[in-house]
Amino acid sequence: METTIALRALMVEPLSREAFAPFGEVIETAGATHYPINQGSTERFHDLARVDVVGGRTLINIFRGQPFHLPVEVRLLERHPLGSQAFVPIDGQRMLIVVAPPGELDESAIRAFISTPWQGVNYATGTWHHPLLTLAARGDFLVVDRGGPGDNCEERLLAQPRRIESLPV
Amino acid sequence: METTIALRALMVEPLSREAFAPFGEVIETAGATHYPINQGSTERFHDLARVDVVGGRTLINIFRGQPFHLPVEVRLLERHPLGSQAFVPIDGQRMLIVVAPPGELDESAIRAFISTPWQGVNYATGTWHHPLLTLAARGDFLVVDRGGPGDNCEERLLAQPRRIESLPV
Repeated sequence: METTIALRALMVEPLSREAFAPFGEVIETAGATHYPINQGSTERFHDLARVDVVGGRTLINIFRGQPFHLPVEVRLLERHPLGSQAFVPIDGQRMLIVVAPPGELDESAIRAFISTPWQGVNYATGTWHHPLLTLAARGDFLVVDRGGPGDNCEERLLAQPRRIESLPV
Repeated sequence: METTIALRALMVEPLSREAFAPFGEVIETAGATHYPINQGSTERFHDLARVDVVGGRTLINIFRGQPFHLPVEVRLLERHPLGSQAFVPIDGQRMLIVVAPPGELDESAIRAFISTPWQGVNYATGTWHHPLLTLAARGDFLVVDRGGPGDNCEERLLAQPRRIESLPV
């Protein structure tokens, strides 16, 4: 007979630059360095993420994510040891972001965030993160990451899977 | 007494990969190489643009463009000799794109395109292009370009300015 074990809840925080700093950057205009260009017709919000492509080249891609629905079970994280990976919504969908700091995976350090339609994220090289979780509707995201030789994806099943039940009010 | 000279009209074409090929790439899912990732929950439309950052590094920025209104006068083009520059709309605005091939500026080779809300463009290194022209409403665009030493922007005033009067039906 199988025993059902209740998964420990993972609380979701609003996404902010400060809270996300251990994991990479939030890509948004709010709080960014900016200046006018093009004779004043354009404002440039400058250098919003650290793009890292060790021994490779920068790729621009679109990821189309199928929607997830709460509750979401978090059973796996992945990391890219050779490069950063940025996700920016191009059709206004939010992301549920689950991360842990680079280095050996410390499951006690896992955190979760919910983005707004105006926020993207850049996972720093080696940051553990869940594969794309878009909520409510299918979402397209511009993804800037690394192409090149070498194995740039490690996956790890969690010893203690977690469960996300609700979003912050 | 000043003499008013009527500017020669510049016709606008719909943006497509084929038509834009001499100038760079169109960033869109339609017609792209794609494959499932993340246990099938995400579709990856892969490597949509050639990012070039000669002697520098890749930057991710947001450009916020003020709206232009027809007719638009085209008096200047610019180019980046050290890197590509990609523009992808993140709030669904279209771009009016004016380009000429790399090399010495040939004004007779200038072409104009209008994008859809689902299309971005990547200007290849050295492609002459007009600064951002968003139509109808303010638009935010994710921009992937180059940071680093050296002068990476040349501007050229047109000997024969042009005028865009209408969009393709």
